[in-house]
Amino acid sequence: MKMTTDDDVRVSVLGLGAMGSVLAGALVKAGYATTVWNRSPGRAEELVARGAEAAATAGEAVRAGQLVITCLLDHASVREVLDPLSGELAGRTLINVTTTSPAQSRETAAWAARAGAAYLDGGIMAVPHMIGQPGASILYSGSAEVFDEYRPLLDLWGDSTYFGEDAGLASLYDLALLAGMYVMFAGFMHGAAMVAPAGVTAREFAAMAAPWLTAMTGGFHGFAEVIDGGDYTVEGQQSLRFSDLGDILAASSDQGVSTEVVAMVQRLIQRQIDAGHGEEGFARIIESIRRPA
Amino acid sequence: MKMTTDDDVRVSVLGLGAMGSVLAGALVKAGYATTVWNRSPGRAEELVARGAEAAATAGEAVRAGQLVITCLLDHASVREVLDPLSGELAGRTLINVTTTSPAQSRETAAWAARAGAAYLDGGIMAVPHMIGQPGASILYSGSAEVFDEYRPLLDLWGDSTYFGEDAGLASLYDLALLAGMYVMFAGFMHGAAMVAPAGVTAREFAAMAAPWLTAMTGGFHGFAEVIDGGDYTVEGQQSLRFSDLGDILAASSDQGVSTEVVAMVQRLIQRQIDAGHGEEGFARIIESIRRPA
Ligand SMILES: NC(=O)c1ccc[n+]([C@@H]2O[C@H](COP(=O)([O-])OP(=O)(O)OC[C@H]3O[C@@H](n4cnc5c(N)ncnc54)[C@H](OP(=O)(O)O)[C@@H]3O)[C@@H](O)[C@H]2O)c1
Ligand SMILES: NC(=O)c1ccc[n+]([C@@H]2O[C@H](COP(=O)([O-])OP(=O)(O)OC[C@H]3O[C@@H](n4cnc5c(N)ncnc54)[C@H](OP(=O)(O)O)[C@@H]3O)[C@@H](O)[C@H]2O)c1
Repeated sequence: MKMTTDDDVRVSVLGLGAMGSVLAGALVKAGYATTVWNRSPGRAEELVARGAEAAATAGEAVRAGQLVITCLLDHASVREVLDPLSGELAGRTLINVTTTSPAQSRETAAWAARAGAAYLDGGIMAVPHMIGQPGASILYSGSAEVFDEYRPLLDLWGDSTYFGEDAGLASLYDLALLAGMYVMFAGFMHGAAMVAPAGVTAREFAAMAAPWLTAMTGGFHGFAEVIDGGDYTVEGQQSLRFSDLGDILAASSDQGVSTEVVAMVQRLIQRQIDAGHGEEGFARIIESIRRPA
Repeated sequence: MKMTTDDDVRVSVLGLGAMGSVLAGALVKAGYATTVWNRSPGRAEELVARGAEAAATAGEAVRAGQLVITCLLDHASVREVLDPLSGELAGRTLINVTTTSPAQSRETAAWAARAGAAYLDGGIMAVPHMIGQPGASILYSGSAEVFDEYRPLLDLWGDSTYFGEDAGLASLYDLALLAGMYVMFAGFMHGAAMVAPAGVTAREFAAMAAPWLTAMTGGFHGFAEVIDGGDYTVEGQQSLRFSDLGDILAASSDQGVSTEVVAMVQRLIQRQIDAGHGEEGFARIIESIRRPA
């Protein structure tokens, strides 16, 4: 395997938790000169054995790296570690892949600008064992120059997507995609709960639901075209009135399970019907979300 | 292309709406001797031009076919068409692919048994243009003998899956999978609504969300194993307490969009945490659905 190395760049990774240690490991493996630091001792040993250098303090780590990567628990821990080091960051590059809110990402970007550091914010859409494997996706926003310069390094971790200069965009996308995931999981659980009383195992249901929902993601693009076009009356769409979830709600009750998961969708539909849009397309439920009731 | 034909079987299709006409068309194309009937006139012409025979009444159609297929609007229309014909159904086979509730499917199965007809219930998980194409899935339950005997015919329409003798099972599965789909769609819409104020188009979001949610369906099997195993304390699961949707809810509010879609999932999580299960796995939210609050 050909490795991407860059002998001119020293990289420092701050935070060697489940995720940070895997990110650092990928850099070491690819031949980057990597310095690592973790608040609690004992987490650097394995990386050091593989070729990393351990820093005794966060300041030492920052000074050792031209590129500083933070992968800490949350925004508060990033502030706690970096605030005392603003003087050391000048002229360096900071890539923060800690999960934070859009507002927090923008705050760190503004802080980095004041400290004289170039800043790229990252949101990791993968669990540690997926890093470096197909399917790992990492979202970035902030400095386009940083993204372009370090693209080969970032691509070691997964598919890298850049969204724009607003440092909050990657976090926003991250949270929006996670929202979709958690809601989909709730839908899966609802279906599994519905069929369970008929003796269907969750495994059996999962074997049907995974390919079915995968196929149904094919519908997103059509919805998106209608939403972006702004005209929900376009021909060929399933109408809101036709999207009656009454049968699903009744069958859920018959099976003795809660209706609240599906009732949430029904409410989004009903608000549009009540507003006189029953003959328009299903995609219009986004208007129920855009305009809180 | 080799065609599946069976010169001994005459098939009658009752109901030539958007779906019924496509199902009948596939049979005609495959060489089945097909009689068609529709309540309102004018819907049989195209099929007749391709080789089908038109019946003037539903009774005539039933008498012409050894296998009778109903694809009508709903349960009420099936009853309306078939009730006067119970005397004609004896010794024939009825496959009803009209979308009905599990209870309605069981009712039609009991009716068919009294009429002396073999009965198979079907649930079509596809739109008309998908029929006969990869990805079209049709669920069946009821008589295993009917399913086995007519499998080659059924496979003309799509992937055929048989669930068991309980005629309500296919409908139940159908509704459970549709529940999952509608809930996933709501999750997609929520994500699209969150990123929209940042200038992200729904198309751009769909391009990220479709592969992301597809990848995340990979998690269903792990949840299912835990659910079937009945032990939510198994190592390696994301805990309920860690599955805090507070960041997503806050970012949704910051973006000015409704929180109700995600709040639904948060409630499922919170009820389990409140019941003392915060350190157990996320799959446990199914218990919030199984046991209505
Ligand atoms: N793991 C995943 O599946 C995953 C997936 C996507 C995104 N992420 C994100 O990646 C980031 C790291 O996650 P992780 O899984 O590596 O978490 P983790 O295993 O819990 O590790 C947390 C890291 O943060 C450090 N830390 C916490 N508070 C600190 C403080 N006040 N000062 C200094 N260091 C502090 C910890 O140091 P100590 O060892 O001293 O406690 C540890 O290195 C999080 O933002 C997470 O949301 C993780
Ligand atoms: N289209 C889809 O995407 C789709 C997908 C999955 C499942 N399905 C299911 O397939 C079934 C048929 O759907 P479709 O799309 O073909 O619907 P459709 O285009 O609206 O056609 C409805 C059919 O039912 C007939 N009908 C309605 N009420 C009747 C009555 N009282 N007596 C006799 N005939 C009656 C109509 O006859 P007239 O022409 O006389 O009105 C027409 O043939 C439904 O149960 C639907 O849920 C459809």
